[in-house]
Amino acid sequence: MAHPGDVSELAALIEAGEVRPHDIRAIIGKTEGNGGLNDFTRGFFTQTLMFMLASHISESPWMLADRIPCVLSGGTEGALSPHYMVFSVADEAAPGQRGLALGTAFTEPTPARQIGRLDQVEAVADAVEAAMRAAGIARPEDVALVQVKAPAAQEPDPDARSQDAKALMALSRAAAALGAGIAIGDVDADLVSEASLLGDFSLFSNRVSISSGVEVTCNEVIVFGYAEGWSQGIVAGVAPMADLLDLAGVQAAFAAAPGEVLGVIAKGEPDRSGAIRGQRHTMLGDTDIDAQRHLRGALGAIVAAVAGDGRVFVSGGAEHQGPPGGGLVCVFARQG
Amino acid sequence: MAHPGDVSELAALIEAGEVRPHDIRAIIGKTEGNGGLNDFTRGFFTQTLMFMLASHISESPWMLADRIPCVLSGGTEGALSPHYMVFSVADEAAPGQRGLALGTAFTEPTPARQIGRLDQVEAVADAVEAAMRAAGIARPEDVALVQVKAPAAQEPDPDARSQDAKALMALSRAAAALGAGIAIGDVDADLVSEASLLGDFSLFSNRVSISSGVEVTCNEVIVFGYAEGWSQGIVAGVAPMADLLDLAGVQAAFAAAPGEVLGVIAKGEPDRSGAIRGQRHTMLGDTDIDAQRHLRGALGAIVAAVAGDGRVFVSGGAEHQGPPGGGLVCVFARQG
Amino acid sequence: MAHPGDVSELAALIEAGEVRPHDIRAIIGKTEGNGGLNDFTRGFFTQTLMFMLASHISESPWMLADRIPCVLSGGTEGALSPHYMVFSVADEAAPGQRGLALGTAFTEPTPARQIGRLDQVEAVADAVEAAMRAAGIARPEDVALVQVKAPAAQEPDPDARSQDAKALMALSRAAAALGAGIAIGDVDADLVSEASLLGDFSLFSNRVSISSGVEVTCNEVIVFGYAEGWSQGIVAGVAPMADLLDLAGVQAAFAAAPGEVLGVIAKGEPDRSGAIRGQRHTMLGDTDIDAQRHLRGALGAIVAAVAGDGRVFVSGGAEHQGPPGGGLVCVFARQG
Amino acid sequence: MAHPGDVSELAALIEAGEVRPHDIRAIIGKTEGNGGLNDFTRGFFTQTLMFMLASHISESPWMLADRIPCVLSGGTEGALSPHYMVFSVADEAAPGQRGLALGTAFTEPTPARQIGRLDQVEAVADAVEAAMRAAGIARPEDVALVQVKAPAAQEPDPDARSQDAKALMALSRAAAALGAGIAIGDVDADLVSEASLLGDFSLFSNRVSISSGVEVTCNEVIVFGYAEGWSQGIVAGVAPMADLLDLAGVQAAFAAAPGEVLGVIAKGEPDRSGAIRGQRHTMLGDTDIDAQRHLRGALGAIVAAVAGDGRVFVSGGAEHQGPPGGGLVCVFARQG
Repeated sequence: MAHPGDVSELAALIEAGEVRPHDIRAIIGKTEGNGGLNDFTRGFFTQTLMFMLASHISESPWMLADRIPCVLSGGTEGALSPHYMVFSVADEAAPGQRGLALGTAFTEPTPARQIGRLDQVEAVADAVEAAMRAAGIARPEDVALVQVKAPAAQEPDPDARSQDAKALMALSRAAAALGAGIAIGDVDADLVSEASLLGDFSLFSNRVSISSGVEVTCNEVIVFGYAEGWSQGIVAGVAPMADLLDLAGVQAAFAAAPGEVLGVIAKGEPDRSGAIRGQRHTMLGDTDIDAQRHLRGALGAIVAAVAGDGRVFVSGGAEHQGPPGGGLVCVFARQG
Repeated sequence: MAHPGDVSELAALIEAGEVRPHDIRAIIGKTEGNGGLNDFTRGFFTQTLMFMLASHISESPWMLADRIPCVLSGGTEGALSPHYMVFSVADEAAPGQRGLALGTAFTEPTPARQIGRLDQVEAVADAVEAAMRAAGIARPEDVALVQVKAPAAQEPDPDARSQDAKALMALSRAAAALGAGIAIGDVDADLVSEASLLGDFSLFSNRVSISSGVEVTCNEVIVFGYAEGWSQGIVAGVAPMADLLDLAGVQAAFAAAPGEVLGVIAKGEPDRSGAIRGQRHTMLGDTDIDAQRHLRGALGAIVAAVAGDGRVFVSGGAEHQGPPGGGLVCVFARQG
Repeated sequence: MAHPGDVSELAALIEAGEVRPHDIRAIIGKTEGNGGLNDFTRGFFTQTLMFMLASHISESPWMLADRIPCVLSGGTEGALSPHYMVFSVADEAAPGQRGLALGTAFTEPTPARQIGRLDQVEAVADAVEAAMRAAGIARPEDVALVQVKAPAAQEPDPDARSQDAKALMALSRAAAALGAGIAIGDVDADLVSEASLLGDFSLFSNRVSISSGVEVTCNEVIVFGYAEGWSQGIVAGVAPMADLLDLAGVQAAFAAAPGEVLGVIAKGEPDRSGAIRGQRHTMLGDTDIDAQRHLRGALGAIVAAVAGDGRVFVSGGAEHQGPPGGGLVCVFARQG
Repeated sequence: MAHPGDVSELAALIEAGEVRPHDIRAIIGKTEGNGGLNDFTRGFFTQTLMFMLASHISESPWMLADRIPCVLSGGTEGALSPHYMVFSVADEAAPGQRGLALGTAFTEPTPARQIGRLDQVEAVADAVEAAMRAAGIARPEDVALVQVKAPAAQEPDPDARSQDAKALMALSRAAAALGAGIAIGDVDADLVSEASLLGDFSLFSNRVSISSGVEVTCNEVIVFGYAEGWSQGIVAGVAPMADLLDLAGVQAAFAAAPGEVLGVIAKGEPDRSGAIRGQRHTMLGDTDIDAQRHLRGALGAIVAAVAGDGRVFVSGGAEHQGPPGGGLVCVFARQG
């Protein structure tokens, strides 16, 4: 991936017949922007990808974008390398096998005034359940990871929970994280109120990863888990990180998915207390480098060092995703 | 360390009698600036420290600054934590023991026109030998680490090797690294010409760590190594990093210095090829975040994750210090 | 001023007898940091200055810092040039003359829980009146400019109006601006409630300029105005800027202070609406450059272009200081 | 223009019949990226624009991009506003009139090894003459402005004049500036050697404006000037800026193009001496904000303040374009 508008590698695989465009179910990737409000590398990549796919399928770029979740996170600080993972599913079932399954679902459009409210929590919970059903994942404990792209406000709305665009994005991640956590049994729905969002960080799931951005208007849900009728051979291992320096947590995720690493997803956040294991960090008060850019550079390097590869999807904003001040790692691998 | 002008913790130790100010031989630390030309946190810390020490010793702040090497690196990106290490040496010898020794030496002032030339290489080599003698370190192989603070141009000089201030700082690090490498037997003096500096990266030492900055006008040298008459109990372990993701290299340095970690020094650099293990990185072409800030955030996080502590001295600009594209790690520990 | 720790020019003037250190009443200056929470150039300058002055006066640096307001703003983006203005007052009165007067006053220490509350508003109003009396400025309409350095939270306080350090700094500026505005008759005290602070931008004064920072714990007030017994010859001209592009407003301030320009103070802010004269600006949503750095670079260049000199004190955060989305300019000049 | 992929306003004008897509000859615009090597907003805009135009014309996006010069400059720091100017030319001649004409031309592809060499200088000079002929501009003195988009290296080439991508971009601008300057009689071809490029800044033209970027592989030339057969009513006024604070220079350009302002182009650079009118600036040594971002914020604000509008095309990198340390301004206006 030479730049954010470069989809030539996927195009070559399609032209060589190695990837069938109809099989593509989801894209998760990292582009080299700043990851913030004014990061347009995500939109550039998506536009380029959908135009390329549309040239191979009888659907318009806009129809494809509405159907295929495209979760992009900007920012390849430090050791990270721009890349994208293409999740394809063949139509043929694998009878008698039990393997890693993938399902997708979309909520209704979420207007700004619903972001960060119980409406969104419930809509995401329902969508996760729908995605599980679509994939045939029978039980909450069979879910490996829920990845959601949650919406941000397209324009200011006086009825929104916050008039600050960044704060509303954080509320959107929080609502999606708790909704997904409820659906997979990690969070007790009875404990979740609007005040819980960004308020009670004792509520979290170690199996949900949320991004938010203006490029989507509804919640796009991808669920990975184990189900009957899916071919064996690919596994997903997930482990929480207790804090940013939790090397053992990272290693546990890799140990849980032995084999050839196919992709890695990690979430984390700068510890809100301003310190990690009692030592002051400076991520939250730097006027020149955004806290999320600091976080991605640090977390990405640790995970990449364990992976031995800079192609790691690292995303900040881990509210209710993994332990507070920490996060989680998910490894996809092809078993030997 | 609450901010770059906070030396209250050392002041308290001095007032409590736990550190004798006369014993202080060197300071190595990190402040939370940007680490570049316009980072004044180093000067602020040094000024504050020397005024504080001067209030306890009958020497002026300026005399102290000329006598005590104060190697500061700006930039505590990501997981790093601002901190400083105080190296004290008691006057009493430890007869019959062999332990970690410390020696310091200073070259003559190095004017801009000598920076990055063989003059500087030779002056640093001589100073390293002088520091070894001062510490009683008998053989080059007994040296654990040479740390140098090398000068930058105080003002433009038409006779300087480069008119670009940043380029001249890199040349200064290169000259000091090769000079120190020659002194400790890691670099063959016959192979070093002016063209070698930043030209032949096959010449390097895994035991030298160089910073450069305008705050010094000569080369300030600190040598750590093993010598007779020094008390046992503190060890230094050093290991090279083959590239930025060389987790095993970091772990090797910690394994070489078992016990309670007292301090860590690491050097590294963004791979000049633009890729790490074949995957493109974006550190060198980011208009918004300086390459060295990217590097420190990534390397610092990896080393801190192994250390379990963000107080790691991480410095970019590893020219001829460790393998190209990689670097080195030095761990100080108190043995159980 | 070669760097933030360089006070050599003032030291030379003192040594030459051109400035008497006892006469120094206030310092207003710009240093080349980022102007944000992690800008330590202000503290470095103040420490250096006070140590230098203390070497000429029988007062400690700390006593001097408590007595002489030192208003520093970090950030010399674009055309701006680091500099400081030294305001000296001779002891001798100028009987029968009426000229530009200067008075200073300090409030009691303002703990975090009082910041941005009516307590602070009232304390600043009282201090402005005290400074006017000290200078002999008889009437509110005789005031040219009130400059205040307002405190920020030294440490988090659960009773503070905001737990966000930057938000609390803005509240502190708002409280000081409205307090000063009340004292000089530009703001109706009856209309000011806690909700007005950052809530009702129709309340403002065109003659108040506020900075806030952790380096002060109380509100330091400097009042400039006209009074009997002060020598003629120096004038201050003030004019509001309706928006960031209000070139005529800048020119009006210079026209109001004809003669040799001695110093310029300007305040401004990125328009909260996200547009200037109907055209979208991008200052508020840039993840890589702080909005205040954008603002200072733009406003500073406009004022410097009119002044023909980059030595302009430009400070962002103009809440209730000049018209919303705009700001104000104050020019000090020596009349022909 | 809501974001770099928003061409809806031009699309609406086309759909309303107010702009005929066949008439579009050139686009000059500013997008809100960082303006550096990793600014992809330019490519995103161009892709979006060409796909939109292609939906109205029977040409592919790639053919359109090869035919219509699209000069984009990233970076809308400070008061600047993202925008683009569309230059359309109706097919019908205006017999008997003499008005502002526009001609375009392209050089052959310029490989990396020709960038910054006399080959490029001559190719650009030829292309400028071709563009003048295409527009019917008879004499060099009839040219108002030459705007060139010059190529950067697509990939490293050991035979290139510099291996530093940014340095090669500067050489490309220098070669194009001197080539254009020769064609319009402002630069003496006999004085131009390869050493002149970035070497002899006494060679410059006040009527050439150059951008460079990886998005083009040849030199794309747009010439504005006066010619017979073009309708009256639109004028272009150009004036040099002696330095960044040359407000009178900016005002002179506006005075030279009285009427309703349609668009503004400005070039400038941070003074290489490190000072403006004797006062130190800090643009060239800031580790956190790129020098060109500083420059655009400052120059853009001054020009926008005179224009009363943030929609100003401001571009840094003014090598040989206007006086050294200064630059130039070109104003397009519709006469009353």
